[in-house]
Amino acid sequence: MTQLRVAVAQLPNRVGDLHGNTDRIIAAMDWAEHDIAADVLVLPELTLTGYGLRDLVLQHEFVDDAAAALAELARRSGRVTTILSTIDRVQPSRSWDTRERDVAICAAMLSGGEIRGKYHKVLLPHYEVFDEARYFAPGKHPDALWRIGDVVAGVVICEDMWSADGPPEAQSAAGAQILLVPNASPFHRGKAGGRLATTRAVARRNGLPVVYVNMVGGQDELAFDGGSIVVDADGELLHRGLEFAEDRFWLDVSVAPPRVLRRAVTNVHTRPTPLRPPSVPTRPNKPKSDVEAVWHAIATGLRDYVLANGFRGVALGLSGGIDSAVTAALAVDAVGPDHVLALAMPSSDTTEAETADARTLAKNLGISLEVIPVSMASSTEQVPTPAREQQMVDSPRERERRYARSRAAVLGDIFMERGYLVLATGNKSEISIGEASLLGDLSGGFAPLKDCLKTVVYELAAYRQERSAVFPANLLHRASTMQRLGSGPTTDWGELDDIIRRLVEHGEGLSDVVDAGHGLDVATSVLKRIARAERTRRYAPPGVRVTSRAFGQDLHLPISNAWRPHLHRGAATSVGAEFTGAPAAGCRSGEDGSSG
Amino acid sequence: MTQLRVAVAQLPNRVGDLHGNTDRIIAAMDWAEHDIAADVLVLPELTLTGYGLRDLVLQHEFVDDAAAALAELARRSGRVTTILSTIDRVQPSRSWDTRERDVAICAAMLSGGEIRGKYHKVLLPHYEVFDEARYFAPGKHPDALWRIGDVVAGVVICEDMWSADGPPEAQSAAGAQILLVPNASPFHRGKAGGRLATTRAVARRNGLPVVYVNMVGGQDELAFDGGSIVVDADGELLHRGLEFAEDRFWLDVSVAPPRVLRRAVTNVHTRPTPLRPPSVPTRPNKPKSDVEAVWHAIATGLRDYVLANGFRGVALGLSGGIDSAVTAALAVDAVGPDHVLALAMPSSDTTEAETADARTLAKNLGISLEVIPVSMASSTEQVPTPAREQQMVDSPRERERRYARSRAAVLGDIFMERGYLVLATGNKSEISIGEASLLGDLSGGFAPLKDCLKTVVYELAAYRQERSAVFPANLLHRASTMQRLGSGPTTDWGELDDIIRRLVEHGEGLSDVVDAGHGLDVATSVLKRIARAERTRRYAPPGVRVTSRAFGQDLHLPISNAWRPHLHRGAATSVGAEFTGAPAAGCRSGEDGSSG
Repeated sequence: MTQLRVAVAQLPNRVGDLHGNTDRIIAAMDWAEHDIAADVLVLPELTLTGYGLRDLVLQHEFVDDAAAALAELARRSGRVTTILSTIDRVQPSRSWDTRERDVAICAAMLSGGEIRGKYHKVLLPHYEVFDEARYFAPGKHPDALWRIGDVVAGVVICEDMWSADGPPEAQSAAGAQILLVPNASPFHRGKAGGRLATTRAVARRNGLPVVYVNMVGGQDELAFDGGSIVVDADGELLHRGLEFAEDRFWLDVSVAPPRVLRRAVTNVHTRPTPLRPPSVPTRPNKPKSDVEAVWHAIATGLRDYVLANGFRGVALGLSGGIDSAVTAALAVDAVGPDHVLALAMPSSDTTEAETADARTLAKNLGISLEVIPVSMASSTEQVPTPAREQQMVDSPRERERRYARSRAAVLGDIFMERGYLVLATGNKSEISIGEASLLGDLSGGFAPLKDCLKTVVYELAAYRQERSAVFPANLLHRASTMQRLGSGPTTDWGELDDIIRRLVEHGEGLSDVVDAGHGLDVATSVLKRIARAERTRRYAPPGVRVTSRAFGQDLHLPISNAWRPHLHRGAATSVGAEFTGAPAAGCRSGEDGSSG
Repeated sequence: MTQLRVAVAQLPNRVGDLHGNTDRIIAAMDWAEHDIAADVLVLPELTLTGYGLRDLVLQHEFVDDAAAALAELARRSGRVTTILSTIDRVQPSRSWDTRERDVAICAAMLSGGEIRGKYHKVLLPHYEVFDEARYFAPGKHPDALWRIGDVVAGVVICEDMWSADGPPEAQSAAGAQILLVPNASPFHRGKAGGRLATTRAVARRNGLPVVYVNMVGGQDELAFDGGSIVVDADGELLHRGLEFAEDRFWLDVSVAPPRVLRRAVTNVHTRPTPLRPPSVPTRPNKPKSDVEAVWHAIATGLRDYVLANGFRGVALGLSGGIDSAVTAALAVDAVGPDHVLALAMPSSDTTEAETADARTLAKNLGISLEVIPVSMASSTEQVPTPAREQQMVDSPRERERRYARSRAAVLGDIFMERGYLVLATGNKSEISIGEASLLGDLSGGFAPLKDCLKTVVYELAAYRQERSAVFPANLLHRASTMQRLGSGPTTDWGELDDIIRRLVEHGEGLSDVVDAGHGLDVATSVLKRIARAERTRRYAPPGVRVTSRAFGQDLHLPISNAWRPHLHRGAATSVGAEFTGAPAAGCRSGEDGSSG
């Protein structure tokens, strides 16, 4: 049975870094050519340019630069066929609207110093975080085939593989014996299992082995998790690459028997596949558990954001609560303890126990802690009236707001003076319902827990605690601010998170939530607050996406929205629970007028 | 020659407001039926649901509610054919990616108590601010025709009209005698002229009259300007509706002679067109000048944002500079002087003249002014070291930053206590290059001048001053903070704005800018700063889009971006002017760590 020696380089995602990416690609090409004597080297989607280019695609000088870099890499190619994905200027064409696109996502076949052919991605995902229909022209040859020595190979790119009747099926029917697939598939919880199932289904449906290569690393809100996989024609897993780490591997893959060719095949080269001793089978890397993968996604995303944006380290306030504690532990894994600065900023309302827990945590994590007591900042030359002063003293929420503002100011000074990225510690539960305050838990340049519901934060804490007990026990059980102030729609995080997950992550409606056993009042309140909080969420810092429905790049809600949801029951009659989407003017804990 | 009596209702855009929109539509239907005895009533695109729904389209209960509202409106329809656009659930289908869509943008033909047919939008714009490929299934019948009495009418929706070989051409070739076009076309400078030219070209190319109906009003960052137009088969303008205002008009339009029918026509009804005395020709409304239109777009967008989000009014700081002065004058036009609160917040660096000008301006505009001197806020219990104190006193930029923070705190308190939307006063020039500080000119909940370059702010000031001299002369000529601090790449706003306009609005590259006569150093600095400032721009409040390239909904830049632009000269050789996209750590005027 014919075997193709396939080398895989799971390279990192560096948007716009044509020089650095070229260097990494050359190193992989040298490895495949000289160390492995591979037949084919497969790299991730848009390895040359990075994935998540957005409007860089519209800058004609960037497209030219990418073309020049591709030409240079082609010149360096040798015996090995390198399948290199990049952007490619094509004939302008119109598709779903009246605007012409003249750039496509391409997999170029490099061999013998030349570009021997190009495949252009046919299916352009435009949902969730994907925005490819905005930028790219679709490829017009879903059934293209490539001769690599004795083997007829199909090449498709990422989304092309997911339709069950798309380019893989066209290429298989036309005569492909193996399918090679560059991908840029960002992480969300559960994604790795879905990828494996899909890859296996493609292999079985088409009776050919599939080489699925993913990129790694963070790009703004996305984390790419690698975990490239190779399956045989029966869908059995031959190898799995590392998750959340650069990786290279190679193996000899038995291709499907030659098929009747139903279309012309482009020759990449016609040298016969050489006889070689077969490769030694390797054990696929063990997949990470769900919570472990979420942890690594956040650490990876944070690390690459810090590196790409030139920060010297990260700073955050430790309150003695679980959100800031987990954020600090993640930061240590992301950038190392020497680059994490923690601040305890007690106010007159802070207990000794909270500050003591912050100290213990910092010690356990090996990070510096500075203790800076904060006051209610006085912004004006005016002395507050006695009535106003009394009001401040009397209102725990108002005191909370003023102290939060002072803490944000202290962290702002750290950023300005030391160049540290300030981490916001807000979680998705609070951000969903407008309980994360812009000058409190959302104050900062990056929010690692932005896409983690509170119950997921507890999962992350338990996962980290199992590795080593860094969190003081009291800290894990301390009531949250929302619980203390009674400002949420419920004090039960499990109830709240289930409702949010249904409404936000599963796209359910009010009646679905009520049918699942939740109270109408609580469900209505949550739905109402999710809509109302969009205005302040627009100013929230970026975070790492770990679900398929993250605020930020994923969820696009209108701010001004007058829809009045109501219980849907059978026929379209409207009963009960109507509300207006407009916020009450004035005081809500999740807002502060400096960005209100 | 057969005439069709066409009634047009240029209704406002209220996203999600099914009840209110239904009421407005019923009023228009009653008017067309009883007051006009029209043959057909044409309403804007997505009149029933509002335009800019974003992820509301994914909420199945909202889609159900819209369907129920449509059924109710159909029941109320009479002799007049109402062409009502809404969202419509359709058979799930896949197009450019692997995700099924089951909602389309629809124009329903309502008559005699029933839905007599539906046209589904074929071309789905996905560029600039448009995101329809994310949500909608494309229509599959570009050549559908509708019999309305004696007349065979074509109906297309917005983007459908702009390709020169799309649905209008298909419908004309199939036998249409008139084209009816609901639109949701948001304003940008120069758009109205483009619409008229396109509508005329469609009419002439197809030899039939065109009725182009646009919506009005603000939705988050977009302002819809109305200005509906009717042209005859020669492309001559028969009528233009009001701009930036609700409007109704009607006229008898001579349709093209009957044509050979090349496809089946759906009967809306087959009653003959009645004999009536013809309508009296009306004079088309005069179009607004460019700068007048920009002014109205901003006032409209701000007004509707305030109304839709339930604010009691707006508050802003008056610095004595032109940006805050123009913002205040716009606010007065948007919400009326009684709902605008101005604050002068002098620091030890503020001159008497600046505060005096703020007083004069407030008086001229008829708005309240409160004078609240600000201090450098002390956030901590610690007394600053003498060295630190001296440093603050010595650095104008550091003083500026601390005073800005105090001003933001004062405005934040106004928001919390009174429910006023705080207006940020930053302009597009400063936002482009990272000179608008998050706690200074970008602090607030809405930024009216966000898409206005500084030179456009001067144009707006001149336009307003011509109406009545509200701005003190000194104020118009006062140096900006950037000019005083020398922190920009140039102190010449004309030079800066031309470079920004080329790079950001016209998609030019560095070499284009240099070829236009700008210095390489200045151009490189601007390009570098635009890329670097994306990180802080993500926290900027919404504003009103007035160009075809507005930061916010229009421009999607990556934050982490390592591309090193260089001068492109002929062949792809890289010479000169390389730079890293990474920011220097620490102090830049456009950033502040509380969101840094």
